[in-house]
Amino acid sequence: MADQYAQTGEDNRPTDRPTDIPAIRWGEPPEGPVVVLLDQTRLPAEEAELVCTDAPALVEAIRTLAVRGAPLLGIAGAYGVALAAARGFDVDEAATALAGARPTAVNLSLGVRRALAAHRDALAATGDPGRAATATLDAARRLHREDAEASRRMAGHGLALLDELLPGGGHRILTHCNTGSLVSGGEGTAFAVALAAHREGRLRRLWVDETRPLLQGARLTAYEAARSGMAYTLLTDNAAGSLFSAGEVDAVLIGADRIAADGSVANKVGSYPLAVLARYHHVPFIVVAPVTTVDPDTADGASIEVEQRAGFEVTEIAAPQASGTGAGAGGGVPLAPLGTQAYNPAFDVTPPELITAIVTEEGVVSPVTGQGLAELCARAGGGVGAG
Amino acid sequence: MADQYAQTGEDNRPTDRPTDIPAIRWGEPPEGPVVVLLDQTRLPAEEAELVCTDAPALVEAIRTLAVRGAPLLGIAGAYGVALAAARGFDVDEAATALAGARPTAVNLSLGVRRALAAHRDALAATGDPGRAATATLDAARRLHREDAEASRRMAGHGLALLDELLPGGGHRILTHCNTGSLVSGGEGTAFAVALAAHREGRLRRLWVDETRPLLQGARLTAYEAARSGMAYTLLTDNAAGSLFSAGEVDAVLIGADRIAADGSVANKVGSYPLAVLARYHHVPFIVVAPVTTVDPDTADGASIEVEQRAGFEVTEIAAPQASGTGAGAGGGVPLAPLGTQAYNPAFDVTPPELITAIVTEEGVVSPVTGQGLAELCARAGGGVGAG
Repeated sequence: MADQYAQTGEDNRPTDRPTDIPAIRWGEPPEGPVVVLLDQTRLPAEEAELVCTDAPALVEAIRTLAVRGAPLLGIAGAYGVALAAARGFDVDEAATALAGARPTAVNLSLGVRRALAAHRDALAATGDPGRAATATLDAARRLHREDAEASRRMAGHGLALLDELLPGGGHRILTHCNTGSLVSGGEGTAFAVALAAHREGRLRRLWVDETRPLLQGARLTAYEAARSGMAYTLLTDNAAGSLFSAGEVDAVLIGADRIAADGSVANKVGSYPLAVLARYHHVPFIVVAPVTTVDPDTADGASIEVEQRAGFEVTEIAAPQASGTGAGAGGGVPLAPLGTQAYNPAFDVTPPELITAIVTEEGVVSPVTGQGLAELCARAGGGVGAG
Repeated sequence: MADQYAQTGEDNRPTDRPTDIPAIRWGEPPEGPVVVLLDQTRLPAEEAELVCTDAPALVEAIRTLAVRGAPLLGIAGAYGVALAAARGFDVDEAATALAGARPTAVNLSLGVRRALAAHRDALAATGDPGRAATATLDAARRLHREDAEASRRMAGHGLALLDELLPGGGHRILTHCNTGSLVSGGEGTAFAVALAAHREGRLRRLWVDETRPLLQGARLTAYEAARSGMAYTLLTDNAAGSLFSAGEVDAVLIGADRIAADGSVANKVGSYPLAVLARYHHVPFIVVAPVTTVDPDTADGASIEVEQRAGFEVTEIAAPQASGTGAGAGGGVPLAPLGTQAYNPAFDVTPPELITAIVTEEGVVSPVTGQGLAELCARAGGGVGAG
């Protein structure tokens, strides 16, 4: 892998990665430009690269969750547009397909739009498709760098908030889904805060929800936690209640896929039950996400379109090591009787009144109100515009 | 299978079973008496019998959950003592091992004690081990029959309660774990109520929690629901929040493994989060269990010993069809990085203030108070004593 980096002249290889392969990178082998992904569906069993030579391949990777996580999807969307431009494909068509690959993830369409705007501007200014392609790639790389920087700042704000809310230290943090280096150009969102607490010696335990149906907690967060040397324990999502009940959770930290203008948060299914449990047990419930996750065009929680995914994700298990051995409709091993229908929303929506704070790279919003979010976005708008 | 029944002269084969094999039966083939179980760990892939020729085999079947479910464990415990008596083994030793196989299940030790008492009484009265063995088997069979009758009465009381709480009909009921014919001498506890509603045309939908880690909902409840022709939909445990949020749940119906004197209910892990969600959404949360589940010797929820199970149940998947192909410590397919520790309580405890009603064969306790439960047990005591 190191040789390959040298060959492709890759310059944005992050440090402190939980894997030997970055979650996403741009490559320029002799055969032409590519977007190379760490195939997250095969973790933790193996670290395998998925090489995308066009936007449809990237769309498929997004749909199958080979690449996932709100901030990383934005970066992937931008690189996808850059790839279409660099290879001379129809850029608008690629952008439309990429933006629609996962409807709930606002960062995805934002990353796509940003790269598309860079392409249009450069094409209008120079009339040169080659220079427009370069400008598009520059925009994608800038988004990638900015996201890494946003992770660092979210971690700082988040840790300060934890220390303020829990002055005793020795935090026992419950998290859901996967929000670390695998979802980001940097160290992630909620996980980055836990990692910062760990590095400061103030993390007593990371409780990792397994996150059914696709087990991002068991497969990915446990993987990142283990590689970071954190004290972590895995649990089924439904065992979180027992932890709250026993007073073993000091705070819940989760990410977000979309934040509506009123502060409603769409995140991985299972987040909302944790918010209700946290409220019942008077435990802080903290959302960590970059400002780009806030969508001012979505008024409230009811307006958020929640992606419904195929039932076989629930009725079958696609264990990494079991690939190829299954006989179910989705290619996995059946768990339920054949013909069983499943309800499988990818996300749920937590209303602002259940959220203690939203932590962004631009600061913390608490209490969570539409006005507080709007002010934050206004501040960030200046910063982002200058980037 | 039908031939085998004819051979063994089996007389307690229930009707309307969801499987072609009863969950438990006593058999007397020429080789000597046996307890035959439907191996629930292999459902829904196959209906396989597990033939136990001594109490240790039955203890192992209880520990591995080949036989499970509060009422059925009581029956299994009683048959186990009868088996030791019939085969001339040490009855006290067998009883101790059986009662300790699963610490939270109060019915198990109750069934064991009841069979043991029948054995002691008969031995004291007649001095004849053969007649004592017959008396022990009679006691186990009586318990089996009584449990089937209790199911019928719980279903009646439960349906009446549902109709009172939800006069509109068209019930959409959420359930957790498996509480039907596979856990009972009859049609079960919570599931029996849903089945009664279905037969009366008043069940609009049964929402089936998959129930991690062992997936009793996906494997067993979906199986029973499908065979009963109910409209059912499977979901991951953490998707229940979305259903409540969308107003799609009219009532929650669950079973119980132990009910403390104050009305605290120990049930399959994941029950307590449902109770908190139900309270937050003003949805009735109803526990259905035979009176034998009430343990007056356990004062309150904090006094309930909650069984902690092996972590590999969480870190590996033991899909029925995948048996034999795995490489994990527990013999399954690893889902999490090797070495990952898991928190795996088998049960959680729901306090009485979150429970709308406890439905038993003797009637309904609502609101749930220690006094209400004590009065119910006093009434039942007369009935049970006469049985």
